[in-house]
Amino acid sequence: MHKTLTPLISLFLLIASSSIATAAGWQALPETAPAPANNPTTAEKVELGKILYFDPRLSSTGTVSCNSCHNVMLGGEDNRAFSMGVHGKLGGRSAPTVWNSAFNSVQFWDGRADSLEAQAEGPVTAGVEMGMKNWAKVVARLKSIPGYAIAFQSAFGEDAVISKENATKAIAAYERTLITPNSPYDRFVKGDETAMSKQQIRGMNTFAQTGCASCHSGAAFNGPTMPAGSGFYVNFPTFSDSPYVEQYDLLKDKGRGEVTQNSADDHKYKIPVLRNIALTAPYFHNGSVKNLDEAVRVMAKVQLNKTLSADEVTDIAAFLNALTGEFPKQTFPRLPATVGTTLTP
Amino acid sequence: MHKTLTPLISLFLLIASSSIATAAGWQALPETAPAPANNPTTAEKVELGKILYFDPRLSSTGTVSCNSCHNVMLGGEDNRAFSMGVHGKLGGRSAPTVWNSAFNSVQFWDGRADSLEAQAEGPVTAGVEMGMKNWAKVVARLKSIPGYAIAFQSAFGEDAVISKENATKAIAAYERTLITPNSPYDRFVKGDETAMSKQQIRGMNTFAQTGCASCHSGAAFNGPTMPAGSGFYVNFPTFSDSPYVEQYDLLKDKGRGEVTQNSADDHKYKIPVLRNIALTAPYFHNGSVKNLDEAVRVMAKVQLNKTLSADEVTDIAAFLNALTGEFPKQTFPRLPATVGTTLTP
Repeated sequence: MHKTLTPLISLFLLIASSSIATAAGWQALPETAPAPANNPTTAEKVELGKILYFDPRLSSTGTVSCNSCHNVMLGGEDNRAFSMGVHGKLGGRSAPTVWNSAFNSVQFWDGRADSLEAQAEGPVTAGVEMGMKNWAKVVARLKSIPGYAIAFQSAFGEDAVISKENATKAIAAYERTLITPNSPYDRFVKGDETAMSKQQIRGMNTFAQTGCASCHSGAAFNGPTMPAGSGFYVNFPTFSDSPYVEQYDLLKDKGRGEVTQNSADDHKYKIPVLRNIALTAPYFHNGSVKNLDEAVRVMAKVQLNKTLSADEVTDIAAFLNALTGEFPKQTFPRLPATVGTTLTP
Repeated sequence: MHKTLTPLISLFLLIASSSIATAAGWQALPETAPAPANNPTTAEKVELGKILYFDPRLSSTGTVSCNSCHNVMLGGEDNRAFSMGVHGKLGGRSAPTVWNSAFNSVQFWDGRADSLEAQAEGPVTAGVEMGMKNWAKVVARLKSIPGYAIAFQSAFGEDAVISKENATKAIAAYERTLITPNSPYDRFVKGDETAMSKQQIRGMNTFAQTGCASCHSGAAFNGPTMPAGSGFYVNFPTFSDSPYVEQYDLLKDKGRGEVTQNSADDHKYKIPVLRNIALTAPYFHNGSVKNLDEAVRVMAKVQLNKTLSADEVTDIAAFLNALTGEFPKQTFPRLPATVGTTLTP
């Protein structure tokens, strides 16, 4: 045991004391996420939020819930390139993971929502997602389900109303509990030198040396700490003359430019979380890359203009596998009954 | 308290000792369901079955799981008339509840599956449901997800293979655990006279007197006890000259006749479970009736040629509400990861 551990420990010490490691600022994932002052996390709100998150009756057809595309039983998304909403309609981007999304300062690939609360508003009334006509219809439907009145009162007080504001607050409160601590990486960073394999430690070093950590920094590997609501955006691709750009159609989507209609924002994206990245193929905003090795190879080329060796690629991918955390056990919510009637045609 | 209880108790004693009650054979729901000799229920099999039941990757698009149409967080179905499968395609019948389906001697409205195991085969490869081309493709996909090998071995032994047979056995084993005991009715039958309201007790009596219990008998109210694999089929509608027949299009579907292609089986159906019926609107094989009161009214007319009074209808519906049981707490399964690649286009 000692025989194999020794080089591993030496390597760890080397990394821990090197300037690369310091620059990367390796951090374990916090076990809780901060909540905004106007939406403190409470058990009752989380419970209501979980119910709403899993309720397909928030969609026009009664078949699509938040969990359909952001599946917490998987890596927090759907393993599809483009998500599929009501009537089999396709969205235009790959669903980001809900796990650890609480650590994003802005939401969506283009950062157009400044909070989890604001994000939760969107998909419910998006035609290609949950397809409800407007939030007034959503609220009317929730009001038609007797159990929701009680759940909203329990979460927001006796005078609480069923409203978009309260519904999205509850969903956000639930999402703030979706954190995956204790990955091999976290245990390694906290001092357990056996938590990562030799290859993973090597990959961690290569990840930093290559420059990946210049964007993918911080505990969630999603960039510099920003005030809630402020995004940190990066050009993707940065080096657009790579053949990968055409191969994976990386310039079709204008990213943040689609939101601001300012060409200076074209092809800018927020930096996605790398936690549990091994579980969330396919990769990139357009889901064009099917496996992690290729995603690493392409990122190095189009963001850093570096051509990684095959070993470097597999080492970094091995390290990224060490970012798969522990998923908290959760019980199924009981969705309040559609009592003796039906909501959908 | 005594003042209101006394007439209630008297009524209970009256019912308990009456020939009507005896004829109806009121029975509490068993807390476990029998398993076939070739598929004994084990914790490991149930766990694998739960994973498969919730895994949308068993569908062609990766968006539809067993739970999509048979939602255990609701009343075990989807509150839709016709279920919606991949690409928004519609099925031709209303999804029956999975809760307490273990007590059916045959499965599907037309009884075409002689076991839960046989039932589980169907939807996965049905074009309008989960849309997989065939089971060979399903097995190939499961084999491509590394975690499944371990889960199948844990459930079926070290030499176990990932196969249709084992997958459907596991799903059936999970479904056999989906039982909802301790409804107000069960507690009442076991001796708690306060468990049902006066109206519910009255409705129970009317239910039996009207003749509903001649078909809806037994602990699950789904008919006489039959050997596993043998169905007990009833004509629906029996009295086809009622205006309801046209109004709710009750003769369009040939029921069991569609399976056997024998006209003697036309419009025959197995008797559906009435447990949790208040949660599973809309009603009938075609989901044509939106609320429970109307379902009661129509059933009395087209099956028994009886016109119920408004009070009789609401009393029976109140009784049916007393059949809503306790749903066992369950933890979410962790679905084995699609590691570093994607299954769907």
